[in-house]
Amino acid sequence: MPDWIKERVVAWRRHLHRHPELSFQESETARYVEKTLHGFEGLIVSRPTPTSVMARLIGSRPGKTLALRADIDALPIAEENDFEFASANPGVMHACGHDGHTAMLLATARLLAERKERLHGEIRFLFQHAEELPPGGAKELVEAGVMDGVDWVFGEHLSSKLPVGQIGVAYGEMAASPDNFTITVKGYGGHAGFPHRAVDPISIGAQIVSNLQHIVSRNTDPLERLVVSVTQFTSGASHNVIPDKAVLKGTVRSFGATVREEVPALMRRIVQGVAVAHGAEFELDYVLGYHPVVNDEEVTRIVEQAAVELAGPAAVVRTPPGMSGEDFSAYQQKSPGTFVNIGAGNPDKGIVYPHHHPRFTFDEDALVTGVQLFVKVADKLLHWDE
Amino acid sequence: MPDWIKERVVAWRRHLHRHPELSFQESETARYVEKTLHGFEGLIVSRPTPTSVMARLIGSRPGKTLALRADIDALPIAEENDFEFASANPGVMHACGHDGHTAMLLATARLLAERKERLHGEIRFLFQHAEELPPGGAKELVEAGVMDGVDWVFGEHLSSKLPVGQIGVAYGEMAASPDNFTITVKGYGGHAGFPHRAVDPISIGAQIVSNLQHIVSRNTDPLERLVVSVTQFTSGASHNVIPDKAVLKGTVRSFGATVREEVPALMRRIVQGVAVAHGAEFELDYVLGYHPVVNDEEVTRIVEQAAVELAGPAAVVRTPPGMSGEDFSAYQQKSPGTFVNIGAGNPDKGIVYPHHHPRFTFDEDALVTGVQLFVKVADKLLHWDE
Amino acid sequence: MPDWIKERVVAWRRHLHRHPELSFQESETARYVEKTLHGFEGLIVSRPTPTSVMARLIGSRPGKTLALRADIDALPIAEENDFEFASANPGVMHACGHDGHTAMLLATARLLAERKERLHGEIRFLFQHAEELPPGGAKELVEAGVMDGVDWVFGEHLSSKLPVGQIGVAYGEMAASPDNFTITVKGYGGHAGFPHRAVDPISIGAQIVSNLQHIVSRNTDPLERLVVSVTQFTSGASHNVIPDKAVLKGTVRSFGATVREEVPALMRRIVQGVAVAHGAEFELDYVLGYHPVVNDEEVTRIVEQAAVELAGPAAVVRTPPGMSGEDFSAYQQKSPGTFVNIGAGNPDKGIVYPHHHPRFTFDEDALVTGVQLFVKVADKLLHWDE
Amino acid sequence: MPDWIKERVVAWRRHLHRHPELSFQESETARYVEKTLHGFEGLIVSRPTPTSVMARLIGSRPGKTLALRADIDALPIAEENDFEFASANPGVMHACGHDGHTAMLLATARLLAERKERLHGEIRFLFQHAEELPPGGAKELVEAGVMDGVDWVFGEHLSSKLPVGQIGVAYGEMAASPDNFTITVKGYGGHAGFPHRAVDPISIGAQIVSNLQHIVSRNTDPLERLVVSVTQFTSGASHNVIPDKAVLKGTVRSFGATVREEVPALMRRIVQGVAVAHGAEFELDYVLGYHPVVNDEEVTRIVEQAAVELAGPAAVVRTPPGMSGEDFSAYQQKSPGTFVNIGAGNPDKGIVYPHHHPRFTFDEDALVTGVQLFVKVADKLLHWDE
Repeated sequence: MPDWIKERVVAWRRHLHRHPELSFQESETARYVEKTLHGFEGLIVSRPTPTSVMARLIGSRPGKTLALRADIDALPIAEENDFEFASANPGVMHACGHDGHTAMLLATARLLAERKERLHGEIRFLFQHAEELPPGGAKELVEAGVMDGVDWVFGEHLSSKLPVGQIGVAYGEMAASPDNFTITVKGYGGHAGFPHRAVDPISIGAQIVSNLQHIVSRNTDPLERLVVSVTQFTSGASHNVIPDKAVLKGTVRSFGATVREEVPALMRRIVQGVAVAHGAEFELDYVLGYHPVVNDEEVTRIVEQAAVELAGPAAVVRTPPGMSGEDFSAYQQKSPGTFVNIGAGNPDKGIVYPHHHPRFTFDEDALVTGVQLFVKVADKLLHWDE
Repeated sequence: MPDWIKERVVAWRRHLHRHPELSFQESETARYVEKTLHGFEGLIVSRPTPTSVMARLIGSRPGKTLALRADIDALPIAEENDFEFASANPGVMHACGHDGHTAMLLATARLLAERKERLHGEIRFLFQHAEELPPGGAKELVEAGVMDGVDWVFGEHLSSKLPVGQIGVAYGEMAASPDNFTITVKGYGGHAGFPHRAVDPISIGAQIVSNLQHIVSRNTDPLERLVVSVTQFTSGASHNVIPDKAVLKGTVRSFGATVREEVPALMRRIVQGVAVAHGAEFELDYVLGYHPVVNDEEVTRIVEQAAVELAGPAAVVRTPPGMSGEDFSAYQQKSPGTFVNIGAGNPDKGIVYPHHHPRFTFDEDALVTGVQLFVKVADKLLHWDE
Repeated sequence: MPDWIKERVVAWRRHLHRHPELSFQESETARYVEKTLHGFEGLIVSRPTPTSVMARLIGSRPGKTLALRADIDALPIAEENDFEFASANPGVMHACGHDGHTAMLLATARLLAERKERLHGEIRFLFQHAEELPPGGAKELVEAGVMDGVDWVFGEHLSSKLPVGQIGVAYGEMAASPDNFTITVKGYGGHAGFPHRAVDPISIGAQIVSNLQHIVSRNTDPLERLVVSVTQFTSGASHNVIPDKAVLKGTVRSFGATVREEVPALMRRIVQGVAVAHGAEFELDYVLGYHPVVNDEEVTRIVEQAAVELAGPAAVVRTPPGMSGEDFSAYQQKSPGTFVNIGAGNPDKGIVYPHHHPRFTFDEDALVTGVQLFVKVADKLLHWDE
Repeated sequence: MPDWIKERVVAWRRHLHRHPELSFQESETARYVEKTLHGFEGLIVSRPTPTSVMARLIGSRPGKTLALRADIDALPIAEENDFEFASANPGVMHACGHDGHTAMLLATARLLAERKERLHGEIRFLFQHAEELPPGGAKELVEAGVMDGVDWVFGEHLSSKLPVGQIGVAYGEMAASPDNFTITVKGYGGHAGFPHRAVDPISIGAQIVSNLQHIVSRNTDPLERLVVSVTQFTSGASHNVIPDKAVLKGTVRSFGATVREEVPALMRRIVQGVAVAHGAEFELDYVLGYHPVVNDEEVTRIVEQAAVELAGPAAVVRTPPGMSGEDFSAYQQKSPGTFVNIGAGNPDKGIVYPHHHPRFTFDEDALVTGVQLFVKVADKLLHWDE
């Protein structure tokens, strides 16, 4: 690795950290990324969408195509770190490490561009907007065609939960699909002393919550990892009036495509059945979130091998499936790929805060690891002249 | 009261007690009643149905018509009393006092027949079969026309719960309608480890039981007296097989006609809704039992007055509504009427066993009270020449 | 009835209607009542509490004591009637007829005071404050001793639901006891994708609602009239966070003292059991409201007789038990009494609005009926020289 | 492979098939196995328990120790096949392929014994009794010490679900632990019309079933594969009597040790909480079955490699976790090991019946594959002189 790497990647990261922008509003970030990429020779830089950037490195000889992805957006969180490079944009913060991802991919682009002449095939560097806000930027990039002709896709995520130096690899399921639902039980209000003249949405809503447990416990494959959580129950405002309606909100987390498709119909059947049982009407609003991240076995095996060569076998760990969403899955819908965690936590330096915390940060040593892994994976997947 | 009463009424009762017959099989009993009635002058005796007897006492002048009723059937119980007059019909027993009712009405018929010349109007003595076995004999008698033209109906029931000497009167609701239901939840059996390939009738049946509670707690008028009890839940026979179906049985007890009519539809709605919610099918078999006994206020007031005159105010008590059925209600569907309890318990004589018990009996002193009350009520309701 | 009655009772009522005061704040009202009573000869007027008034009419000869009650407070409602005598106190309104009750009892006091010389015994006129606001004024009056030595208590309520000219009588249960509860289910919040690390107050609260149905459907006497309504369920504020707690509010309406005492313990047992079943903690706050109004049979029979004599049998109807509260019950805890409805609705005059409605009013013809009934009941219950 | 293999392994299998014996009663089978093993040179043959056999092949030089396992017991099923070698023991049948397992391991022992001189280390051939009947024979063999000093354990199972020629490999979870429970809800019986005098075990049992769903849906890690099935609900025998108790039976299937340990406590907490909520008592009888079969990753990788070399990559498939039990897990509690499925179904030959079916059989070609895999795994895991 050339000497400039650590210095540049940290500098880029700190600049980005100081100037965070919300999802779908990453104008300055995209401009900065674009300008930086223009500084490297041999890249074809474009804007697939208003706030995203793609750089294509097209080798001198034909071959396979690999996409590398970084997300660039920040969060609506007021930073509580007192770094010199802390957010200068009040109420907005890079609290999930996307500043690091962007910096790593910039350095990777520069390094690989230097070897363009030896490359068979193509590398696409995707600087994606709006990972944090459904429907997400990945979907837009795919629709804009960035994945057309791509053979593999690879992404990295810094993780403060994983100690710096480690790399977390997952075969198969890695991040769940976070679908949301809102159920409105429409009863008929009345005096609390005359329940028979009302249609009581609270007792009906309670039965719905109870019956919804069957989706996980009875109705779906026990080998599937599935969660159905009702997280909000809002009805009524007094001691003596039966209210008109109850609103139930919640989330469904799943991995398998089949089970994911089954749940909305099961939920509708249960809500409708219980509502009808008690003479109520209902509305069910079911919003699909990101696809689950499911890593391709072959690509993962190659990436794992790269990680082992880079960091040694002891540093490569298995990442258990997580229940949060990640729109990297949109790329995996098009081409096989894998997503890894780059360890970036460091209790000795006080780097212990979880992602999305106002004091979140990561160990900058992890940035170099991230760049090295991007390069090594490209080396393994593509063909380079000696 | 003439001297012969006590002696005759006890003799008749003992004869009947010794020769009990089951519901709808009261051939000998009916013959005995018929023959006895033929021994009294002035009655028109007929057989409205094969095992029931009616005697009409038609006064010399026109007037109102009063029906007096006694039930004559016995129960499939093996008597454990060692009376000289204990049942000679093994496995069959007068364990509810119908022998007494019949004897009392015979004596009443004889007494009133002697006063036929002074009577304006008519008295009908109904010796009804099959009170113990739904659909009951009262319904058949009504269909046979015994209530046509009747203005009032009056009945008495000996009660071992009430001390001899007392008379129990009820305004309004006295005995509930005992309707029964059988719910079959038709699921789809399978291996207990793969619930998603089955439709589990036990978890669905459990939700049905839980949702059925709403009929009483939410769906019907809290001023109504209503019980919905699931009394049987039968499903499955092993630790590791999800069964095909679950059978739920139970009873509904109510008084008001409106609520009684509402329950089957509410039950169907709930069972169907919950079954549909979980992909099961169902059958609901709902069998209406007797109508509730609801005493007419005016007739009851007159009967209460008669009871007070007969036994003194302290001896006349209010009978709370009970949850067992009584097909006297079939007559009340046609004409206003009332039904009273004649106290016949006597702990001092060891007469403490409940109705339907193999050692049930009653204090025979109560028989005279019963006859006197029949006569007094007839006196008050009808017009007699001085 | 003297000619002055109708004129005076209407005048008093309109003055009171124009100057309504909230519960426990009836200073001017009490002063007005006190002043008016002082204008009648033969009464001993006192203030049992700061805003209530009692007048005692002590007969020349010893005898029984009868208390007659009117409530005097108004409601926090902005009147929408455009009467000349509409509320001059913005946001406060006599929307329940207490202005009429007060006027009727004033007229009654004047009428009966004129006959003081012929009275054996005593009549107490209770002008009670704060019927509308628990813990209520009746309780305070009882504690102040106004019921000491009282043999019977009698009260009237104008009802816009009942047509003017009719009088509604109830034997036994008339108004329920309105007790309130608040259940807090204390779980442990967390990420909606990891329910096992949380204690989910919504699914637990739902089971509590479901299990609470058993209080009415399984755990209490079906002959009792009981309602348990959960009227508020508040928990959570997002799609993806399991909340910390759920708050359930509701009301319990009952008549019988035994069942009323059973419910709090049954509720505690259920809430505790279900909370423990799922590892949650809970708080149960159970607040007893007024006692139920349960009319004494003997007094009611006498009052009914008075009503029949006054208005004819066709005008006297049975009032079914209602599920709202009324603190007249506090007097009945001390002495037998009865409470009647005086019909005051009149669709022909557009008098159709329910109590507590901003356009509530009543037909003033009812006021005379009310006075006449007060007088007739006094005549019947007490002894007067001819 | 020597020529004798196919002939011998088929002959042994058919002999065993013709003479099946039930679990813990495998006297003749054990004798036959023992005698056959004595025919091979170089083995130390012993009886760890009365009906099991162990053969030790101790190499000339020190090294690792590998255990190979076959189960030898049959099932209480009446065979419906009309093979010449069909069961001669009425009502007992090798309907799960254990005859094949035994034959394969006999052939393997003979083959490997011939190479004894070149072996570093030891091979133990475990002919285990009573796999079909908990607590199982594996546990007894482990207690008898057969696993002492063993480094790895390997077993094979013929599967009629898998086409002959294929080999099914599983990483990690392969067979669940089948634990059973019996819940007795002890209520208090009574007349169905008076639920408040009873403690109704059916409505309480129903709430228990409903609340037990939370174990899977709310209380345990969604990444775990867990099933809780109530498979029997027995209570009551009539329409009008509330029964005394309800009996609920069912099974719990799990893989992870932690979740398996959590469930009994969660179940107890729920059953107790709901019982207490409604004033009932309960008994919970929870019986642990076999441990789950969880294959060691390293050993599985080596076995998978052996299978690929033997049958080609296309023939090696992944076996999904199953919900039935297998006491091979008892060995895995002592040493890392793996368990594979040997494809033995063949629709073209009509070999389609599931295990435990009266017409179950398998394609005997699979026997050779099984022997070859046993040998190849031994070759890979142990050290042999060239």
